[in-house]
Amino acid sequence: MRQTFISLTIAASLGFMLGGCAVSTHSTSADAKQESAITIANKTPELALAMQVKNASEESDLAYEIVKSLTVEVGPRIPGSQGDKRAVAWAEAKFNEMGFDKVYKQPVRVRNWERGFADAKVVAPFPQELVITALGGSIATPESGLEAKVVMFDSLASLSEADKATVEGNIVFLNTRMQRDKAGKFYGKVVPNRVAGAVEAAKMGAKAVIIRSVGTDNSRFAHTGVMRYDEEVEKIPAGAISTADADNLEAMFSSEQDVVLNINMQAKDAGWQTSYNVIGEFTGTEKPDEVVLISAHLDSWDEGTGALDDGAGVGIVTAAAKIIKDTIGQPKRTIRVILYAAEEIGLVGAYQYVRTNRESLENIIFAAESDFGAGKIYQLDTRFDEAVRNDPSDLYAALKSMGVELGNNTTNGGPDVSMLPNYGVPVIALKQDGTYYFDYHHTPNDTLDKIELDDIRQNQTVWALITAYIANSDFDPRPAPKR
Amino acid sequence: MRQTFISLTIAASLGFMLGGCAVSTHSTSADAKQESAITIANKTPELALAMQVKNASEESDLAYEIVKSLTVEVGPRIPGSQGDKRAVAWAEAKFNEMGFDKVYKQPVRVRNWERGFADAKVVAPFPQELVITALGGSIATPESGLEAKVVMFDSLASLSEADKATVEGNIVFLNTRMQRDKAGKFYGKVVPNRVAGAVEAAKMGAKAVIIRSVGTDNSRFAHTGVMRYDEEVEKIPAGAISTADADNLEAMFSSEQDVVLNINMQAKDAGWQTSYNVIGEFTGTEKPDEVVLISAHLDSWDEGTGALDDGAGVGIVTAAAKIIKDTIGQPKRTIRVILYAAEEIGLVGAYQYVRTNRESLENIIFAAESDFGAGKIYQLDTRFDEAVRNDPSDLYAALKSMGVELGNNTTNGGPDVSMLPNYGVPVIALKQDGTYYFDYHHTPNDTLDKIELDDIRQNQTVWALITAYIANSDFDPRPAPKR
Repeated sequence: MRQTFISLTIAASLGFMLGGCAVSTHSTSADAKQESAITIANKTPELALAMQVKNASEESDLAYEIVKSLTVEVGPRIPGSQGDKRAVAWAEAKFNEMGFDKVYKQPVRVRNWERGFADAKVVAPFPQELVITALGGSIATPESGLEAKVVMFDSLASLSEADKATVEGNIVFLNTRMQRDKAGKFYGKVVPNRVAGAVEAAKMGAKAVIIRSVGTDNSRFAHTGVMRYDEEVEKIPAGAISTADADNLEAMFSSEQDVVLNINMQAKDAGWQTSYNVIGEFTGTEKPDEVVLISAHLDSWDEGTGALDDGAGVGIVTAAAKIIKDTIGQPKRTIRVILYAAEEIGLVGAYQYVRTNRESLENIIFAAESDFGAGKIYQLDTRFDEAVRNDPSDLYAALKSMGVELGNNTTNGGPDVSMLPNYGVPVIALKQDGTYYFDYHHTPNDTLDKIELDDIRQNQTVWALITAYIANSDFDPRPAPKR
Repeated sequence: MRQTFISLTIAASLGFMLGGCAVSTHSTSADAKQESAITIANKTPELALAMQVKNASEESDLAYEIVKSLTVEVGPRIPGSQGDKRAVAWAEAKFNEMGFDKVYKQPVRVRNWERGFADAKVVAPFPQELVITALGGSIATPESGLEAKVVMFDSLASLSEADKATVEGNIVFLNTRMQRDKAGKFYGKVVPNRVAGAVEAAKMGAKAVIIRSVGTDNSRFAHTGVMRYDEEVEKIPAGAISTADADNLEAMFSSEQDVVLNINMQAKDAGWQTSYNVIGEFTGTEKPDEVVLISAHLDSWDEGTGALDDGAGVGIVTAAAKIIKDTIGQPKRTIRVILYAAEEIGLVGAYQYVRTNRESLENIIFAAESDFGAGKIYQLDTRFDEAVRNDPSDLYAALKSMGVELGNNTTNGGPDVSMLPNYGVPVIALKQDGTYYFDYHHTPNDTLDKIELDDIRQNQTVWALITAYIANSDFDPRPAPKR
C-alpha cells in the first residue's frame, strides 16, 4: 500500500477520522482491517460512520443466518402458495424481532400457478424418461398426455424461418445452449426461448414446446422460469428438459427414425391470491422523508428452497440495514428495506409498489435490489444525476480498496427497481460474480449449501457501507438521468 | 527424459523392437508418442505388439462411442426391467457388429425390483418437501404413507447404542457425511448405513429408516443403492434423501419442536425375471483354452442412464478388445469380454458365471473388471503368483511411463471378479481417480456428459496395453496367492 502522507484527527464523540492519504488499490482483509487506522483523501463524516459499519459487518454472519432461517423455516414460496403466505409472516416476524421501527405490508394480487405433475417419455426411437419441468404459467397437457413427433431447432430464429408444414402438429424442441459468463450475459440471449417459445411455436402450428433448460450446468435438473402467452395465439403447453436430457434427446436425432415424445404436465392456474410486499424501516432522525430504498424479492420458484434466488438478497439487504442500526444507530435519512412479492412472475410486487406509492417516489434518494445470488460484488454501476455523480469520491475510493470498481452511470438497477428511473428515481446496481449462478437458477438445486459464507458476507458489507454512507449524508443524486 | 543408451533392431514382419534404454519416468502424451521410437530394457515381443495397440488406442474414441451408444439407445437398465432386456440385445448386437468371433449369453435369474413413486414431506416444524429415493430392494410404505417423529443419529453405532425407547415407533434418520477421496475410500465406511440401516433400525423398533445419501455432492439428487433385509428382523421401508435435504432436515432439529416426517414410497418386488451375462470372445490362435477375462457390468440403477456406472466399464473393456483385434489381429490366447448381469443387486451375474463355469475357471490367466467410472488410471494392483509376479517388468515400465504405478499384489479386483481368487484365479485392479465419482454414483445425474473423452481414452489405452501384452505372452500368473 502506498501512502503519500498521513494525518490523523480524532473527534471522540462521533469517532470521525479526518485526514488524507492515497488509498491502497489492493483489497485484502488485512488491508480492510487496517483501513480504520489509515485515512482517505477528502474523507467525509459519512465515510467514517460507514467504515465502522463495514468493520462490524466483516465480523457478522447475519446475512447467512437470515437466508438459513428463510430456507429452513419457510423453503419454497411461489406466489400465492402456502409457502408464500408463510414467507410473509416470517418476514414480518423477522423485521419485528430485529427492531425495525416501522414494519408494514402492502397487498399485491397474484395469480397462483401450481406446477403439478410433469413427465416426459421418449417413445421412439429409444424409450427413455426425460427430466422435465413445466415453465411458469404453462397450461396443462391433456390428462392422458400429449404424444407427437419432435422437431428440433437450434434457436427461435430457426423456428420462425422453418417451413410451417414441418412443424404443424408436432412438438417443437428449442435446443439452444447457454455459455457461462461472470456477468451472466448469455442469459438474455437464451431466455427468449423460455419466455416466447410457446407463442412462436404455436404460430407455426406446434402442439407443445420443450426447451433445453436455460442454465449453465450439465445435470439432470430442469430450470423453470416464467413464460408468456399471447391472447391472439393459441396456448400450448411449455416445458423445460434438463441439459443432460437435452443432450440425450439431441443424440437420438442421429438415428433414422422419427423422434416421438409423450409429455404429461398437469400444471394448474389456481386463481387469484393475495401476497404482500413486506417493508421494514429505520426512520431517519434528521430527514425522515428522504428514503434510501434497498430491496430483494421474497418469493421464489417452488422446486428449490430459493436460497440464491432470492434468499441471498433478502439476507444481504436485511442484514445491511440491521448492522447499520446496531453499529452507528438510527440513520439521518430513512432506510427502507422492501421484500417484494411475486418478482418471478413479472415484477408484480414492484409494479404494485409504484402504483401505491406514486406520489412519494420523488422522496427516494436511491433504490437498489440484490437479486443475483451470493457471488462476490466486483463493480458499482449507478444512475445518478451527472452533475453530482462523482461527488462521493471517498466512498468510491473505499469501495475500490475492497475490490469494487466504479462502473457505468446508465444502469436500471435490479429487476424490481428497474422501472423507477422512469420516474426520476436514482438507482444503483452492485454487479456480482455470476459464473455459477445459472447452474442452480430456477432448479431444485437452489439450496443453502450453494452459498459461501465469505461471499455473502462480502455482499452484506458492501451494501452496508454504501447504505450507511448515503443514509447519513446530504449527497443527493436526484433526479436519475434519462436514457 | 533421460536415456542411457539406445539400440534399435527392427524385425519387419512383426514390427518387433528390441534393444535397451532406461525408460522415462515422466508421462506426457509427447513422451508416449515417442515411445515407439525408444526401446525399453528387456523388452519382449508381446510388449512391442502391445505398444502398437497403445498407439492405435490413443487415436480412438471407441470406448466413448460405445458408452454413448449404450446411454442413448438403451439408457436405464435395472435388472429384470425392459431396459435390461434391451441392454442384453444391444450388447449381443454390438459384439456381433464388432466382429467378435464368439458371441453368447448365459441366463441369470434376477429379482425385478421396481422403484415406484417416492415422496417425503416434513410435517413439522417447517412443512417442506424433501427429495427422497427408495433404497434398492426396499419394501413400500403403506399406500397412504407413513408419518412419524424423526430421531437423528450421526452413525449406525450411535443408533445401536441408543435407548430403544427413544427410537421405538419413530423414523430413524442416519446422518453420516461422506468425504471425498481419490480412491473413494470413505464409501466403505458410510455405505453400511445404506446396506444395514433398515435392519439395525428395525431392531430398535423403528418404523422406517432414511439416510443422508451416500455421496460426495452437495445437491438435490438422492443416491440409491442396494440394501439388505434379515429374515429374523422385521422389514421396514428404507430411503435416501439428498445431501442438501439432509442439511435442511438436520437444521430443523434446532427448533424446539419434534421433527415429523411423512414418507410415501411405493416400491414393488415384481418377481423373478431372466437376465443374461453377455460374452464376446476373440478366440486365441495358439492357446485358445487360456483365457484373458476382462469385464464390466451391463446393468445399471434406474434413475440415471448408467454412464459412469457402469457404461464406462462396458465401453472401456469392449473397446480394448476390439482395438487389439483391429491393430494386431487375433491374439494367441483367448480374450473374453464379459458384460455381467445384475451386479448392482449383489454380483448376481458374476456368481452365476462361477457356478456355470466352475470346471473351467482354472483356464483363466487373469480376470479384471472396470467398474469405477471414467477417471484416469494411476495404479495397477495385482494378485499374481509371487514367483512370477515381477516377470513382466517391461510391461510395468511401459505403464509407469504412462503414469500408472505398480501397486500391491493383494487385490481382489473389481466387484464381479472379486470371488475368483478364492478359486485360484489371478486378478488385477486398475485403480482410477474417483475424486468426483461419488458425486454422481447411483443418482439421476449419472449421464454421458459426466465422462471426459480424454479420461476414458486413457482407460481404454491402459486396458488394451495390458490385455494385448498378456494375451500374446506366455506369462502365467496362476494360481492367485491366498490372502
